Amino acid sequence: MSSEHPFTTRVRYGDTDCMGVAYYANYLYWFEVGRTEFCRAHGKSYADWEEAGIFLPVVEARCRYKHPARYEDEITIYTRVGEVKASSVVFEYRIERTSDGKPLASGWTRHAFVDGSGKLLKGDNPMRRWIAELGA
Amino acid sequence: MSSEHPFTTRVRYGDTDCMGVAYYANYLYWFEVGRTEFCRAHGKSYADWEEAGIFLPVVEARCRYKHPARYEDEITIYTRVGEVKASSVVFEYRIERTSDGKPLASGWTRHAFVDGSGKLLKGDNPMRRWIAELGA
Amino acid sequence: MSSEHPFTTRVRYGDTDCMGVAYYANYLYWFEVGRTEFCRAHGKSYADWEEAGIFLPVVEARCRYKHPARYEDEITIYTRVGEVKASSVVFEYRIERTSDGKPLASGWTRHAFVDGSGKLLKGDNPMRRWIAELGA
Amino acid sequence: MSSEHPFTTRVRYGDTDCMGVAYYANYLYWFEVGRTEFCRAHGKSYADWEEAGIFLPVVEARCRYKHPARYEDEITIYTRVGEVKASSVVFEYRIERTSDGKPLASGWTRHAFVDGSGKLLKGDNPMRRWIAELGA
Repeated sequence: MSSEHPFTTRVRYGDTDCMGVAYYANYLYWFEVGRTEFCRAHGKSYADWEEAGIFLPVVEARCRYKHPARYEDEITIYTRVGEVKASSVVFEYRIERTSDGKPLASGWTRHAFVDGSGKLLKGDNPMRRWIAELGA
Repeated sequence: MSSEHPFTTRVRYGDTDCMGVAYYANYLYWFEVGRTEFCRAHGKSYADWEEAGIFLPVVEARCRYKHPARYEDEITIYTRVGEVKASSVVFEYRIERTSDGKPLASGWTRHAFVDGSGKLLKGDNPMRRWIAELGA
Repeated sequence: MSSEHPFTTRVRYGDTDCMGVAYYANYLYWFEVGRTEFCRAHGKSYADWEEAGIFLPVVEARCRYKHPARYEDEITIYTRVGEVKASSVVFEYRIERTSDGKPLASGWTRHAFVDGSGKLLKGDNPMRRWIAELGA
Repeated sequence: MSSEHPFTTRVRYGDTDCMGVAYYANYLYWFEVGRTEFCRAHGKSYADWEEAGIFLPVVEARCRYKHPARYEDEITIYTRVGEVKASSVVFEYRIERTSDGKPLASGWTRHAFVDGSGKLLKGDNPMRRWIAELGA
């Protein structure tokens, strides 16, 4: 498994709901932020891969909600690479309240390697190799 | 000006914010719903136009917020065509609480006619003609 | 298990992303729409429960993405009650493309029964009873 | 008028739409980010005011879209205080692509000063004074 990459952001008004806490779907957005910044921190932007014709649509997502994030909370998204299979990769996430390290949520997303037409890349591909090395 | 087309939807948890009301950016989403359903009600889907190579990016948007929409409120979006110029069209919107007709918001969006490469369509085009007739 | 309740909505421009398909976090929003409309179809609005001091924060969510939903697609969200435990309930969802029944996604959310202060309702409560009957 | 406060963020997948650019409603979200960070940079969080019983619901918003923001673009939101009236304040925004200063959008939002029950604060209030000084 790779080491975790931290990225910090803040809960905005638009992220909250009328229960006074961050709306549950936004955690998947924050997971996206986490994996994008993980890639960038390791020298590759996700856009680079798309230009090279390799896409990573999500095929499954899971999130456990532990403690609500509130308006103005600074949160830290920790991202690492999980299992890398022949044609898929898992990213794993933990979200903490930055001020005190309170765990807010954890989860993972599984992504397929596909080409521009949506066809599964079954053999090896440069992005898979790159991610597998990071996750080793 | 065209007659108004009504479309009804409902305020969801995910649309609200921690002030307990619908978040202000969501009204622009509802404006989009309004103009799409306006087009559909008049026999054309916006996707049809895109397939024909005509796009309508928004170049300006304005919204006045009159009364907050709350969770579970059913709202009605009234849409009509406003001014049609050589290379732009205005859609106008009113949003009411369905139960009692309370005005919640009003606004407009102005859209340019462009081709697939983003170039302004300066002469006439089929979508402009179609909209101009509706707005007459 | 309860029978499934269908609810139909449409993919909007604002729901899509630059891969040309519905953004993955929006499925959790559609799950919310599904469970709200499930409750309403059975005679209770979720807002009623909140007024009675019973809240259902989500504690876990899972979604499998099978086929992308695209702009203008009409989708049907099928919702039913899954497992009802002492202090939690599971809602299960399937989302289909309405036109041809193509499965787009499936998933579930697990919710705790809590009071207005966020404290777990460990004993029985009226919402739990109501849902358990629906799910029987 | 106050000097502009810059704040930098990035366009995410979830912010884009199937035209390949940032969805138009997200600019209002970025305006919120701008005015929140403007307040924080000047020593006050918006949450502080809410705790003091002063709220600033938006009563009007306007945005002009000049050039599309794309996935992965870093954008800078410049925010300043505009006109401060007896019971309202205007925030003004410009959004630029950070890499080359390309103007992407500009706009403003007008906010009322209200108390916790939504009643307009007609006389002076501490937040109005604070903002008026910043805007002077």
